[in-house]
This record gives sequence, C-alpha cells and structure tokens, in this order.
Amino acid sequence: MSLLITGSVALDSVKTPLQEHHDLLGGSASYAAVAASFFGPVQMLAIVGTDFPEKYLALYRKHGIDLDGLQIADGKTFRWSGEYEWDLNKRRTLSVELNVFEIFKPALPEAYKSTPYVFLANISPQLQMHVLAQVTAPKFIVADTMDLWIETQRDALTDLLRKIDCLVLNESEAREFTKETSLIKAGRLLLKMGPKYVVIKKGEHGSMLFGNDFFFSAPAYPLEDIHDPTGAGDCFAGAFTGYLTRADRIDHESLRKAVIYGSVIASYCVEDFSLTRLQSLTEAQINERYSLFKSMSHFDVV
Amino acid sequence: MSLLITGSVALDSVKTPLQEHHDLLGGSASYAAVAASFFGPVQMLAIVGTDFPEKYLALYRKHGIDLDGLQIADGKTFRWSGEYEWDLNKRRTLSVELNVFEIFKPALPEAYKSTPYVFLANISPQLQMHVLAQVTAPKFIVADTMDLWIETQRDALTDLLRKIDCLVLNESEAREFTKETSLIKAGRLLLKMGPKYVVIKKGEHGSMLFGNDFFFSAPAYPLEDIHDPTGAGDCFAGAFTGYLTRADRIDHESLRKAVIYGSVIASYCVEDFSLTRLQSLTEAQINERYSLFKSMSHFDVV
Repeated sequence: MSLLITGSVALDSVKTPLQEHHDLLGGSASYAAVAASFFGPVQMLAIVGTDFPEKYLALYRKHGIDLDGLQIADGKTFRWSGEYEWDLNKRRTLSVELNVFEIFKPALPEAYKSTPYVFLANISPQLQMHVLAQVTAPKFIVADTMDLWIETQRDALTDLLRKIDCLVLNESEAREFTKETSLIKAGRLLLKMGPKYVVIKKGEHGSMLFGNDFFFSAPAYPLEDIHDPTGAGDCFAGAFTGYLTRADRIDHESLRKAVIYGSVIASYCVEDFSLTRLQSLTEAQINERYSLFKSMSHFDVV
Repeated sequence: MSLLITGSVALDSVKTPLQEHHDLLGGSASYAAVAASFFGPVQMLAIVGTDFPEKYLALYRKHGIDLDGLQIADGKTFRWSGEYEWDLNKRRTLSVELNVFEIFKPALPEAYKSTPYVFLANISPQLQMHVLAQVTAPKFIVADTMDLWIETQRDALTDLLRKIDCLVLNESEAREFTKETSLIKAGRLLLKMGPKYVVIKKGEHGSMLFGNDFFFSAPAYPLEDIHDPTGAGDCFAGAFTGYLTRADRIDHESLRKAVIYGSVIASYCVEDFSLTRLQSLTEAQINERYSLFKSMSHFDVV
C-alpha cells in the first residue's frame, strides 16, 4: 500500500535556551513523510524553491520517498523561525516567509491519483481540499491543521471535516476550534462535525483517539531531555497514517497500534533538532520503544 | 489488613457555574477514608467541632470507618469555601476557617499504633510527622501535600519525604516543589528526595507513577460532565492506598492496579458534589469502570 502526503516543506531556524540552528529541514510534509517512511512507501506532494539544498533531497530519497510530486519552483523555499522557552511547551514564532508557497497549487502526478491512503499534513484547508479533489480512490484520509486556519479559515476547515476520515490536531487547537474547555467534550464535538475519528495530541500528556463508541488514550514517552519539539506532532500523524497504510485495515486494533507507533516516532524526533534523530533510527529501536510503551501503560485485569 | 488515614475533615461550601452547595462533607481525610473503604477497613484520625452533623458521622459509619480516632472538640469544625470557573480546572479559594483544626495535636488510639498501612492525607507536614512518629510497625506510608505547604513549610516537607514510601501530589505542586517544568524531571527529582515511589496526579490527563527503574502512566476516565472536582485527588490517593492495603504487597503489578483503582474512584467522585456519588457506588460499578480503563488503554504487542 502507498501513502500520499502533502503539506509544507520548509527551511527552519530554531532556537532553544541551549542551542540555535539555521536552515534545518522542516515543514509538516518533511516530518510526516520521513516518519511514515518507516512503515512503507510515501509519495510526497509539496513545493520548494531553487535554493533547496540537494542534501535534503538526498535525505528524502534515502527514506525511499517518491519525489515526483515535489515541485521545484523559481524562488526561495518557505522559511520559518521560532524560539522555545525553558518550558519547551512554550514556543514563539519569530518569522514566516511564504516565498514559493504563495504560488503552490499542486497538481497530482498521474501515479499519485489512485493512492488509497492520504495524509493532508498542515497546510491551508483550501490547499488540502484542492489535493483531495484530485484523489480518485481514497480509502482513508487523515488531516492535520493549526490555530492559524482555525482563526482565519474556519468555514473551509469545517467543509474539510466532512470530507476526511480522521482529524489530528493538538490540545489547544481542539479547545479553540470547539470553544470547549473539556477535551472530552471537544473531541466528541469534533466527531459530530464529520470525521469518523479524531485524535487530540497533548504533547507531554500523550494523546487521545475518539471514535463512535470507541476511545483510546495513550501516554507520552517519559523523556527527560527534549532537544527540539519542532515537528513532533507532524511525525506523530505521519507515523500514525504510515502504520495504518501498512496494516491496510481500519479497526480498533490497528488504530490503537497506529497511535502508539505515532507516539514512538514522535518521541525519537524530539531527541534532536530537525529530522536528525530519525536519520539513524532503526526498526529495532522502534520496536524496543513500542514495547516500553506497552510496559508503561499495561495493567492486569481485576 | 487495616489502613490508618489522617487528614482534615471539613464542612465545605462549593460553587460551580451551575450549582452552589453549603455545609457539604469535605476535607482530605473524609474523601480519602470513604474512597479507601471500598477496599477494606479504615481507621480515621481527625478532628471536628461540636457542630459536626450527626448525619456525616453516620455516613462514615455506613462505610465501616473506625471513628475511635475522630476527636470531637469544643468549637467549630474546619470550614472551606471555593469557587470553580467554567474551566473546572480553575479553582479559587474564597475562605478558610481553621477553627478546631488549630488545636489538632492527634494522639493515636492504642489500636491504631500497629496499623501497617498509613495514608497521611493533606494536612501540614508537621502534623503528618507527628502522626508518623506514633506508628510502631509501618509497612507502607503514603503522603499527599499541597501548594501551601510547599510554599510555607518546604523544610518540614523535605524531612517528611525521607520518612515515607510514596508521595502523591498534583502536577502543579510537583512543578512548584522541584522548580522543573518537565513533569518527568520533576517526578525523578522527587524520587531522589526520599520516597520509593512518586505519583503525579494530572487531573484530566491522568496520572504517572515513578519508581526506580519503573514508570507507569494511566489515563483519566473520559467524563463529559464533571459536576464538582473537589476531593478527586484525595479519593485517588485514598483508593490507591486502600487497594495496596487489601493486596498487602507492594510490587509493580499491585502498584499499577492501585493507580487504576484510584482513577476509578476519583472518576466517580466528580460526578456529583461532595461524597454524594460514592454513597451509591457499588462493587459492580467499580469493576465495570476498571474494565473500561483497561479497554481504553490497552493495545496489542507488535
């Protein structure tokens, strides 16, 4: 099974209280595609500028990511810079330069159109919808979003919710979208807006998956040293969708496992800046941490 | 096995955006003792005034709570009043009247002294230490605390940590005590200060248990309608210790189960004001929700 991922590709500058790095590989599609690549083939649909470093193209290729849908346009690559406080849950965006992203109007390569699994990583809901309209035989569509679209494009986002199978968003976004302080109420309200499943990502508190008559709660991996939280949510959603694509079935068992695999890959992602840690990540390490998730959340029946 | 619980008994006034109730049965010892009573006999060590309603004594007795250690002193019972916002995680204390609590200097009834399991519910660390000094054959000592003691009696609390087996405290208290924003760092730091186990209660995000080379994470029950969060943490810790007392062994398996039983009883507590919901709680309901916790956090191995 193949997985189509669209979203942003960016060159990031990230500052934490301890380190600062520039021109890192970033963007929702980069994180999601690399995370998903551990579970099977990924087709990437995104745009970069002519300044996009060859080494990052090589990184995608190393992960077996199909780049037929990666448009290289005249101009500069999308750039983002942000700064984290000591409390790494607190992030401030310092600058955003859309650059070639302003002209992104993706046309799906012929070979991508019949791809059954689709992850619409965080980009504007209009762009997500534009991609979706070109997909001819979708089996399971997952979408992520962000506060910016909730604030500025609520109607488009509401439309999108009726066309997808699973929405993935973070805690504050779920609260903001639904105007509910209770995450349980927020999750159930989002379910009623269209998707069959809603995943709320809670960072250090793990994640929750809501379905009709189905609820699953997963812890976060208890990491003491987080180096850079950027992209953790994209990795979670990429690995989540990647695992479902490999399993090629959507049921409670596969969804639970997908949430845990998402948590595993996200927990490795934050151990270093950008996609650095995922470059050396092995299948054995993925399985090892999956087992640790099992042991830290397992308890016996009465 | 018997369990000794000391802490406060209060008459509470609680206001939420939807309801307001006065002269409710409250206090850390009340919640903890009733919660623990579902697992076996409880001895209560606390103080009330002559105004303490007979109906609340009858409630304790209905739960089989041994009241030989409940001192009825001249004067008024400790009173607390608080108000919750729409976001029920946000609480404001409106008033505190210590009343007879100011003269509380508990002497253990002879029959309590050899009780093996002890829960020092939230009262000042000096009082907790004073009780502990009279216990002759402790097997497992659990203590709770609150922000007030962290701010005003840090030294006494630090002393107490060296004398107990397990500290139970909430998320913000763990952060405040250790000055760490990461709860994982906070939990591990508290472990180094003395106790063999640390439980961090995170409200809607569940709880985490830290031990040396042991970590367990439990979700919260996904309740849509919370009526009054007061006492949830005390119920958690009371049921946690109550289950360990019944199991009469401290190992990873019993600790995991104790955390889940704590979460189960706490989830019922918040369904109504004061201890109202626990009055009609049955063993079948406890087991039913325990099973739901299992199904909502279980996933298969790779």
